Amino acid sequence: MRLSRYFLPTLRENPAEAQIVSHRLMLRAGLVRQSAAGIYSWLPLGLKVLRNIERIVREEQNRAGAIELLMPTIQSADLWRESGRYDAYGKEMLRITDRHEREMLYGPTNEELITAIVRDSIKSYRDLPRNLYHIQWKFRDEVRPRFGVMRGREFLMKDAYSFDIDKAGARKAYEKMFVAYLRTYARLGLKAIPMAADTGPIGGDMSHEFIILAETGESAVFCHGDLVDYDILGQEIDFEGDLGPIIERWTGLYAATDEKHDEARFEADVPAEKRIAARGIEVGHIFYFGTKYSKPMGAVVAGPNGEPVDLEMGSYGIGVSRLIGAIIEASHDDNGIIWPESVAPFKVALINLKSGDATVDAACDKLYAQLEAAGIETLYDDTAERAGSKFATADLIGLPWQVHVGPRGLANGIVEVKNRKTGERREVAIDQVAAALG
Amino acid sequence: MRLSRYFLPTLRENPAEAQIVSHRLMLRAGLVRQSAAGIYSWLPLGLKVLRNIERIVREEQNRAGAIELLMPTIQSADLWRESGRYDAYGKEMLRITDRHEREMLYGPTNEELITAIVRDSIKSYRDLPRNLYHIQWKFRDEVRPRFGVMRGREFLMKDAYSFDIDKAGARKAYEKMFVAYLRTYARLGLKAIPMAADTGPIGGDMSHEFIILAETGESAVFCHGDLVDYDILGQEIDFEGDLGPIIERWTGLYAATDEKHDEARFEADVPAEKRIAARGIEVGHIFYFGTKYSKPMGAVVAGPNGEPVDLEMGSYGIGVSRLIGAIIEASHDDNGIIWPESVAPFKVALINLKSGDATVDAACDKLYAQLEAAGIETLYDDTAERAGSKFATADLIGLPWQVHVGPRGLANGIVEVKNRKTGERREVAIDQVAAALG
Repeated sequence: MRLSRYFLPTLRENPAEAQIVSHRLMLRAGLVRQSAAGIYSWLPLGLKVLRNIERIVREEQNRAGAIELLMPTIQSADLWRESGRYDAYGKEMLRITDRHEREMLYGPTNEELITAIVRDSIKSYRDLPRNLYHIQWKFRDEVRPRFGVMRGREFLMKDAYSFDIDKAGARKAYEKMFVAYLRTYARLGLKAIPMAADTGPIGGDMSHEFIILAETGESAVFCHGDLVDYDILGQEIDFEGDLGPIIERWTGLYAATDEKHDEARFEADVPAEKRIAARGIEVGHIFYFGTKYSKPMGAVVAGPNGEPVDLEMGSYGIGVSRLIGAIIEASHDDNGIIWPESVAPFKVALINLKSGDATVDAACDKLYAQLEAAGIETLYDDTAERAGSKFATADLIGLPWQVHVGPRGLANGIVEVKNRKTGERREVAIDQVAAALG
Repeated sequence: MRLSRYFLPTLRENPAEAQIVSHRLMLRAGLVRQSAAGIYSWLPLGLKVLRNIERIVREEQNRAGAIELLMPTIQSADLWRESGRYDAYGKEMLRITDRHEREMLYGPTNEELITAIVRDSIKSYRDLPRNLYHIQWKFRDEVRPRFGVMRGREFLMKDAYSFDIDKAGARKAYEKMFVAYLRTYARLGLKAIPMAADTGPIGGDMSHEFIILAETGESAVFCHGDLVDYDILGQEIDFEGDLGPIIERWTGLYAATDEKHDEARFEADVPAEKRIAARGIEVGHIFYFGTKYSKPMGAVVAGPNGEPVDLEMGSYGIGVSRLIGAIIEASHDDNGIIWPESVAPFKVALINLKSGDATVDAACDKLYAQLEAAGIETLYDDTAERAGSKFATADLIGLPWQVHVGPRGLANGIVEVKNRKTGERREVAIDQVAAALG
């Protein structure tokens, strides 16, 4: 993409309303623009990151056997009366009355709707297990929206719902999502630690939050330091096989959020030098809640002997839009964002150091065509800005690689390639750049 | 995908509430499920079609130089007061009050919001032209939702907005979208005819609707028969070049919707045997409306001499979710849907005619693996249903190709390949199937 034809409204100044670094950088780098309190428009660069995150989340859900569908944003209040949550949910639920005075709501979550769909469609244990998910905008009417997309009102969430004939099946479904989540965060370049958690308004018996350690996290968390070094991506995982050993490894060490924290146990179980007491950002939450929704809503199937069985359920959420904030909190420096390659909006910033110079323009145009032909997504800064300003923009928006093309290097057939994360620069022959970055 | 692990709740009976064939088939084939009046959940098969349509729409927008972003569903009422439309829009707008008693609304369209974004970001004619689009859920509170997704309340729309410094630029932007729309519908397997149209509540000076001819169309349309045979896909198109000849060809023959129809001109301009008076489904609408929003909202840039210039604008909508209904109206038979390959949820239905027979199961499993390895998306019916029931389901859901694998053919290393559209069947050696369908 040529920057001269793109829409990338960056800001030079730090916006006064932004209290945390990810919010500041998202506004300055032209990723989002606030359109109302806690409600954001995703500008082209931000949307590309959002779609990349969404794709990774989707791939890992599919890998674990979950099936994607899409439920609407607007739901009927009557459905929520069946579970008893319409009155219980409180003011975070955006309640709406349509032109016929029917009570509706903007879904903050989808347990009721998915349970109704499954109730009407699945009649036999033979059609189980199933795990159905969607990636859809939700609305929670936060009393005080802040921190940008980290605590917005309209936000993108992946929510999956598992349906099983018995508790053993439900546990297996829970374990699959547990492992899928570990893989998802790792692919996003994040160190997410599963922690025992309260179940909150979703309700249920077994629950983990996935937490990123960050100074600006909203809650205090406590864990064993070894968890930070655990890695999941090296492993071949058979989701139909026994996931027990992986679960045990990741839950065997102390890790708890504030609500579940037990200081005495923490001190007893974790050597002093391994104790981490920090702040954390919740980027996912998984629940097992048995028949909490299936029983009141009549989601019953015929069991092996024809007997009616209430479905065993769990739900599994990832805050997709919030993850962008979390990734920036975890990966930035004084100059701007540092995107992990897996989610970067473009891989390369191609910088023309002397736009208007025929030789440099021609070399840049040719290199741009080569990079695109090689499938390397490139943002080509072909604008008339000064070189210093282009460097600052490239650092701010945080693409993994920069290629600096100027007259002096070109005289020797050379360009400079800079790694945004390490700052390392090296000279590369211009006809080798595509191969070097491919 | 193995059908035994998928979520495809088909219906045997025609649902009583469905008045038109696309609505009936979408419910029966398990594409959607109604969750409230005019509000649908997209089941896995329907979502795959929706995403395929969305991808084609996106590719053609990008090809024409439009840039994707994403605006939120919920907007502030104040923004709509700036243009004067908050009071004017009427009951189709879903109005919402949040917990702080602020007036909000679920966006039925986005002229105001995009104008505000551009107003805050683009300050000079040098940053023009720009065409910004998004693909987002909209809500229009239809008084009587019907015909399934064809006239739903929550629907997916692609809406693009062009910004230019002068009328000549705006016309060029309009022409690009005109041609992009022709390409989009052609790739979807649809014959869409551009027709002069009223501008309705969006307002403006120049406007075309893109209309699919179908018996169940909501409005009467009149056109020259040659337009039905026009083709756009064979042409190489340079969107930066002169699009005039293409526009003239497609607008040179008579074509008008009811509101703009002039019977006398129709009879004078079109020979009797070429006159088509039919019913049509609107699948797109493009508008040029000049400074209708930029002027009241103060979207002004500095022109070449520093003088303030009101932005010239147009907007360009495609009803993405409605297109699924339109495609089915245009492409079905008594047995079910016939998907064009470009949007089919899977390319192949692999049918095991004797599940449980070890030889047939093994041959199917192997063929399924080969098809998937070849990148051919396959829905593998490995269920215990009878062969007749499997055939009926495959015809109903309308995948372009069926592969029938049974014991008799396998004895000779042969399977039957059926084309859903033509009904043609031929015998293919089992090890040639992937190559034949690739």
